[in-house]
Amino acid sequence: HLPFMLFAGPCAMESRDHAIEVSSAIKEITDDLGIGFVYKTSFDKANRTSLSSKRGVGLNDALPVFAEVKERLGVPVLTDIHERSQCAPVGEVVDVLQIPAFLCRQTDLLIAAAETGRVIKIKKGQFLAPWDMKNVVSKVTDSGNPNVLITERGASFGYNTLVTDFRGVPTMARDTGAPIIFDATHSVQQPGGQGGTSGGQREMVPTLARAAVAVGVAGIFAETHPDPDKAPSDGPNMIPLHLLRGFLEELIELDRVAKARKNLHWFAE
Amino acid sequence: HLPFMLFAGPCAMESRDHAIEVSSAIKEITDDLGIGFVYKTSFDKANRTSLSSKRGVGLNDALPVFAEVKERLGVPVLTDIHERSQCAPVGEVVDVLQIPAFLCRQTDLLIAAAETGRVIKIKKGQFLAPWDMKNVVSKVTDSGNPNVLITERGASFGYNTLVTDFRGVPTMARDTGAPIIFDATHSVQQPGGQGGTSGGQREMVPTLARAAVAVGVAGIFAETHPDPDKAPSDGPNMIPLHLLRGFLEELIELDRVAKARKNLHWFAE
Amino acid sequence: HLPFMLFAGPCAMESRDHAIEVSSAIKEITDDLGIGFVYKTSFDKANRTSLSSKRGVGLNDALPVFAEVKERLGVPVLTDIHERSQCAPVGEVVDVLQIPAFLCRQTDLLIAAAETGRVIKIKKGQFLAPWDMKNVVSKVTDSGNPNVLITERGASFGYNTLVTDFRGVPTMARDTGAPIIFDATHSVQQPGGQGGTSGGQREMVPTLARAAVAVGVAGIFAETHPDPDKAPSDGPNMIPLHLLRGFLEELIELDRVAKARKNLHWFAE
Amino acid sequence: HLPFMLFAGPCAMESRDHAIEVSSAIKEITDDLGIGFVYKTSFDKANRTSLSSKRGVGLNDALPVFAEVKERLGVPVLTDIHERSQCAPVGEVVDVLQIPAFLCRQTDLLIAAAETGRVIKIKKGQFLAPWDMKNVVSKVTDSGNPNVLITERGASFGYNTLVTDFRGVPTMARDTGAPIIFDATHSVQQPGGQGGTSGGQREMVPTLARAAVAVGVAGIFAETHPDPDKAPSDGPNMIPLHLLRGFLEELIELDRVAKARKNLHWFAE
Repeated sequence: HLPFMLFAGPCAMESRDHAIEVSSAIKEITDDLGIGFVYKTSFDKANRTSLSSKRGVGLNDALPVFAEVKERLGVPVLTDIHERSQCAPVGEVVDVLQIPAFLCRQTDLLIAAAETGRVIKIKKGQFLAPWDMKNVVSKVTDSGNPNVLITERGASFGYNTLVTDFRGVPTMARDTGAPIIFDATHSVQQPGGQGGTSGGQREMVPTLARAAVAVGVAGIFAETHPDPDKAPSDGPNMIPLHLLRGFLEELIELDRVAKARKNLHWFAE
Repeated sequence: HLPFMLFAGPCAMESRDHAIEVSSAIKEITDDLGIGFVYKTSFDKANRTSLSSKRGVGLNDALPVFAEVKERLGVPVLTDIHERSQCAPVGEVVDVLQIPAFLCRQTDLLIAAAETGRVIKIKKGQFLAPWDMKNVVSKVTDSGNPNVLITERGASFGYNTLVTDFRGVPTMARDTGAPIIFDATHSVQQPGGQGGTSGGQREMVPTLARAAVAVGVAGIFAETHPDPDKAPSDGPNMIPLHLLRGFLEELIELDRVAKARKNLHWFAE
Repeated sequence: HLPFMLFAGPCAMESRDHAIEVSSAIKEITDDLGIGFVYKTSFDKANRTSLSSKRGVGLNDALPVFAEVKERLGVPVLTDIHERSQCAPVGEVVDVLQIPAFLCRQTDLLIAAAETGRVIKIKKGQFLAPWDMKNVVSKVTDSGNPNVLITERGASFGYNTLVTDFRGVPTMARDTGAPIIFDATHSVQQPGGQGGTSGGQREMVPTLARAAVAVGVAGIFAETHPDPDKAPSDGPNMIPLHLLRGFLEELIELDRVAKARKNLHWFAE
Repeated sequence: HLPFMLFAGPCAMESRDHAIEVSSAIKEITDDLGIGFVYKTSFDKANRTSLSSKRGVGLNDALPVFAEVKERLGVPVLTDIHERSQCAPVGEVVDVLQIPAFLCRQTDLLIAAAETGRVIKIKKGQFLAPWDMKNVVSKVTDSGNPNVLITERGASFGYNTLVTDFRGVPTMARDTGAPIIFDATHSVQQPGGQGGTSGGQREMVPTLARAAVAVGVAGIFAETHPDPDKAPSDGPNMIPLHLLRGFLEELIELDRVAKARKNLHWFAE
């Protein structure tokens, strides 16, 4: 078993300098800790709670920044796409195309993403059961692209609340063969919970991340920011950058124990 | 108060002849019963459970059929749109543009739909609370289009199950001022419940529709088909066409009583 | 079909005079409106949110009051029981023994209640599916007592929230043959929603009650009080007594229409 | 930090010999592994799904067996109680009195249990939020008994399904100061999921137990049986006894790592 991979970065790209600063800071940590790192950031927040929420720098301004991060740091980069037409240009530069949870059943988007040949990371819809992801993944693999990652990020549980059912991790792994990534910061979102914006429970991020690693996920996704309370989006659930190292150290120790077992899900034999 | 309006038709457009046949049959019933009618059908099923599910005739073939239905029958037509670029051409012909539930927070789609000036019918996401719709509706009205309808179609309730919380009807009406339409056939869907396709509880359609009318909805949306079990999609929850008249007669009687009250929600004074 | 029956009264018995006053006031209304009436009140609130909440007058003080209400007004009375040992003494006087929702699977309580020969009104647990009630009802009927009423009062939906799934009404009626009563005031509870006590949405009571009557319930249960905000329990969801008549008038009209149909659930044929 | 404590045994007491055999077998394992052990078994299954389900040997026959297990093995014993009147006699012998989840808000039962002076282990109701347990625990501690354990066993999630929200562990620990025990076998129950009985997902027990240990629970509760498929109750979710040692070894390793951290929930500072 490989150690877990980290997907991290600020929710939204703010500027070229901010992107270089944050990606470099994370890279230094993951190099020290000896784990893989994919830099994540969004060029557009296409489904904000309200119209007045900030959107992002846009595709055209973002692509050169992604290219620069890749070249300077030698790390793969990830971003989310929202429309078919974005797939090809984004796929020219970006290594991992992420399908947002609300869009995970949009067939055309999945096919266009698949056709880039890049790794496709699909976030499980809040409205789906773990076993529903088999059909979602097939839309990509049957389009000729076997490189799929699934992201668990919680299921709708009453109003303005998500709950993570960790049984989904072995279920989706068994059903699809795809590596399962746990999105530790969106799983603690309280969608729409602050009226015009979404709330979040930042203090619960390590709790759920520890559970995910113990269950055997292949990677952790976590949004992080030097100053979350000033971030243009998702501040309430992002990890402050200065806490990232301690957060990861703990997870790495648990991961080592969890993956030392031959049969992680031995009851499933 | 006006009597309730019916939005009905087969889930997917199958052919020109089928569309004319079904729309004419429904028009005859609604004329007899004296209620308004908007013909609904989809040109593309963009978020089917699996890749092997049928999609539809496509935009180009559908628009002339919509135009013919409008002209021959004098009824408004409704269809759903999935990408920004579809809004303008569909808006040339179709009277009501429907935003699918999964896409109800996609800002660009809502703005592009708003800009057609047509009526925008937004399906409430299965992952949203009733009070979350205020921000969704504002994305359209703040874009200069005040003509919004909201559709209730159930909320995620555990796995592969939807539940309709009828408190949402007065809540959304109060918060937005928009008429609330109850989608009686998708509310009984069992998403993903049959593995590769969605299941449904057709026998529960009249139960939920009666409740909705008693609560004071402005309209009922119901998919109907001459032979649901042979339909390319949503067969398990569509109403057989020969039962539509009796279904509506009952609802009209309840609607008359429900709307005779001056203060439908008198506790909310 | 019979018109719907009303089960009503204050949540907790406060005193003999209060009980006579409230039961007489309700009786006058239901006599005027021509519907049946069962007087409900509790002698003990055995599962309050916290230890400091008021409990009630107790069994010994309550039984003579129940007897007096029955004799003076000629109305049947209902109360809830919490332990096996209460069934026999309560059954000497009270016509309908109500099983609290949390206790609906306690086999010994159901059997002891059944053995009184009285009508047993079972509240569906917030943690049960409609089809689970078949086994619950059998515990009473297989103990030799066929007189069972089922009460729908909402299902757990995330935290501190209940949702009513009206599909449960025909489902439970079909599965058990028992009349289904809708508890209009507990269905709008927000359990534990105020920290030390439960909250409630009184303004939603008529909305859900209208839905229930349209769906064809056999009766409505509603707690009512001359001054809910001063009541010892359940104030946030009880109906103010002066609004009861208008509330019922509206439901009676809907009930007449709903039950005029031969086949209330015709899709279920 | 102490290593985690194991609460284990067969769901229902079957006979004196069976109890001695199983408790001895578990004791041998926990002695080898160096963890604490409390023997659990029920003398009565008071809330079975249906009347025809087996109940148990009863209180009078069970108490001497509990006493013998304690004396021979030197292990504390745990059983659940369902009525006030059982508390005193059970408290004479049994070390830990367990309050069933459905009964966790029954004030009289909690007080009577508290008055035994024994450790009171309260299962969180499937219908409660983590923060609701504060009031539940206070019913015991305000009755003069500070010895409370809380058990997490999942929350209602749609119909016939439970989901475990691991955020509840630090939330309840913070709110109450009580040790949190994770019930690894009831958390995978599918209540009522087999019609007349409850189903279960035995293969998911280690998955959820690993998550719980990583999150820092004080103990694990797990029902186990030499031959679960022949057990009178809860067969579908009990752990086969021959797999118990491997199950525990893995958890112990994770527990050591999880508890090595000074600040288990450092974000909550």
